[in-house]
Amino acid sequence: MSPISPLAPASFPELPVVPGVALHAYAANLRYSGRPDLFLAVMPEGTTVGGVFTQSACPSAPVDWCKNILPSGYARAVVCNAGNANAFTGSSGAASVQAEVDTLSAALGVPANEIYVASTGVIGETLDDGQMVAALGHLVEAKGAAWPDAAKAITTTDTFSKGAVAVVPGTHVSGSVVGIAKGSGMIAPDMATMLGFLFTDVAATSEALQLAVSSATNESFNRITVDSDTSTSDTVLLFSTGAAGNEPIDGPNHPAWADFSAAVFEVCLDLAHQIVRDGEGANKFIEIHVEGAVSDESAEVVARSIADSPLVKTAMAAEDANWGRIVMAVGKAGEPADRDKLAIWIGEEQITEAGLVHPDYSEDRANEFLKQDDIVVRVDMGMGMGSGSVWTCDLTHGYIEINAGYRS
Amino acid sequence: MSPISPLAPASFPELPVVPGVALHAYAANLRYSGRPDLFLAVMPEGTTVGGVFTQSACPSAPVDWCKNILPSGYARAVVCNAGNANAFTGSSGAASVQAEVDTLSAALGVPANEIYVASTGVIGETLDDGQMVAALGHLVEAKGAAWPDAAKAITTTDTFSKGAVAVVPGTHVSGSVVGIAKGSGMIAPDMATMLGFLFTDVAATSEALQLAVSSATNESFNRITVDSDTSTSDTVLLFSTGAAGNEPIDGPNHPAWADFSAAVFEVCLDLAHQIVRDGEGANKFIEIHVEGAVSDESAEVVARSIADSPLVKTAMAAEDANWGRIVMAVGKAGEPADRDKLAIWIGEEQITEAGLVHPDYSEDRANEFLKQDDIVVRVDMGMGMGSGSVWTCDLTHGYIEINAGYRS
Repeated sequence: MSPISPLAPASFPELPVVPGVALHAYAANLRYSGRPDLFLAVMPEGTTVGGVFTQSACPSAPVDWCKNILPSGYARAVVCNAGNANAFTGSSGAASVQAEVDTLSAALGVPANEIYVASTGVIGETLDDGQMVAALGHLVEAKGAAWPDAAKAITTTDTFSKGAVAVVPGTHVSGSVVGIAKGSGMIAPDMATMLGFLFTDVAATSEALQLAVSSATNESFNRITVDSDTSTSDTVLLFSTGAAGNEPIDGPNHPAWADFSAAVFEVCLDLAHQIVRDGEGANKFIEIHVEGAVSDESAEVVARSIADSPLVKTAMAAEDANWGRIVMAVGKAGEPADRDKLAIWIGEEQITEAGLVHPDYSEDRANEFLKQDDIVVRVDMGMGMGSGSVWTCDLTHGYIEINAGYRS
Repeated sequence: MSPISPLAPASFPELPVVPGVALHAYAANLRYSGRPDLFLAVMPEGTTVGGVFTQSACPSAPVDWCKNILPSGYARAVVCNAGNANAFTGSSGAASVQAEVDTLSAALGVPANEIYVASTGVIGETLDDGQMVAALGHLVEAKGAAWPDAAKAITTTDTFSKGAVAVVPGTHVSGSVVGIAKGSGMIAPDMATMLGFLFTDVAATSEALQLAVSSATNESFNRITVDSDTSTSDTVLLFSTGAAGNEPIDGPNHPAWADFSAAVFEVCLDLAHQIVRDGEGANKFIEIHVEGAVSDESAEVVARSIADSPLVKTAMAAEDANWGRIVMAVGKAGEPADRDKLAIWIGEEQITEAGLVHPDYSEDRANEFLKQDDIVVRVDMGMGMGSGSVWTCDLTHGYIEINAGYRS
């Protein structure tokens, strides 16, 4: 067990009950012991859902299942096990998912095709269906779980549990959005995956939820990178019980859309930043902000090129303002750039201007900024109005230590 | 100074004189001491040249210069300094290149626009033109250098000098292709770059040289990756003195084309492999071979995705057959793939078949293969006839050690 990340929040946040959502957590000892490793949320009839999944061409069996049932737009439950990803398990993987949903369908009295499934852990090991079915029976009984247990139950190599809440201000609709997430590398040692489950009592159609969760994910979970690796199981789901009783939000023209989608985004961004703060071996939380690009898309590509560069990330680990590596990463991004218009800042210290070292640049001052836990690198391309940020962490001996260790 | 890579060849190869090429090497103490740090090759009138350069949008001043003069197709000299990349140096960078070529033009009595320039080292530091001009004077006098000194003079953080030779078999044309190269990370700590200089006495037109060096680079230097980072200064040049006296090779229809282009490729691949063997912190030389892809291009993308994955590279460092990470890297590549057709081998051990663990798979046997210095990972996509290889090294504490250290 790794020590808690030095970048972790001081404590798990206070998360409110989401009316209509019943939480279950159970320690089934499937791989871990002394902690919950099964999570279940049961929701009332009429609960709507939106979701986004890994782009991997080799997705896990649970991802296949969720993608398949999502078009109905309705959900009654979501279940997650930690320790086995049920990925690359061939036809037995799909059979395991079917066994899980059939078991829960019978026990909860809800349609099987409204039960969402996520699995995280080792790739390539077949689930023991008998053991899982028995464990799910206990999970159904394990009612009244609190958010900290729920958040803990979905973790694998995470060094802290991740939760976030945003209140919809109530101008038009009153309610809250609560989320839990797990993730520590884009895919951890051989445990895997980034998962996020969000719940709201604000009534919204599945189309509106899909739009809210897709755009929020695009600007949050899709803007973080620990090691550029992508899991076979990444899943973000947003459920609405509708218990707030409002006229359902049906899209961007609804008066409460702006407040609601902002709350969804706030929770996603908070959880995404927590995942970076739990990046394997991370000692620095780094925002790469690119502006002056030819488009927002171009800015994101450049920011990601910098954020994914092992040479930039090792320089940050060393608290060394080795800005030549930032120039290198801008150059290799493949986006429109003009070396002689490039301006770079570390913290508030401007390093380059118009393709040259700034006359007032002080490497000592830049290195002072790099001693902080939270670092901002800013690049002005001088090409246009596009901007965007990507968040990452530094690359340290800790990352090698964690990932070059044998599977236990 | 890092110790010599454990993957280094036993010794620098015996390289023949290339008729017409005069080598110079000089220890100018520009950044390093006790070793040559300036290299010059002078070639006879009529020498032809082909070249390829970094795709970086922020190229160094010498790269700008070389790209600009290459269309003439003729060369009389190539000069290289180690220690300062003359990159991101604004207008003074171009002025420095001009000072260098003017000095050499006068001293050698050759046209300035037939002098190729390469610089490798720190990014963002302006060259001291007075010091460089004086040093070039000594370099012009330092005639009769041997290949080992020439190869040493272009290195920065390399732990060994790199040279290779291939003999054109003489069926149609008799001669040789000799090359030297440097490179240790795609861009080293703050030293930088991959450079390759190839010389042949076989007469060939500049168009034929361009075709030979472009296609050879595409299958060699462009197929290696240490850390996925790309330098601002990467340069490969191929010079033909024509001293062999053959009817110049003018393209693929010439009877000697196949033998000649094969010799160029052989030298490029040998040098490219040596660069990987000198990868920062490398303990393993790894070939990733992908077959059964929908096209050769697709195979290369998948192979690169595996070769660039920090999680695959750390598993190799640990000698751990953590094949789930290979599945992950195939999945994230964005190329056509079918999880249920995927077959994976480490060495001769088949791990998966048709999307499942192979019934005879032995993790112990796979780990035995991983104990060797040279490792082959083979992936059959089961989709088509495309194939291709990428070469890389493992990701170790040594990489972090080298790159997270301060610039001296």
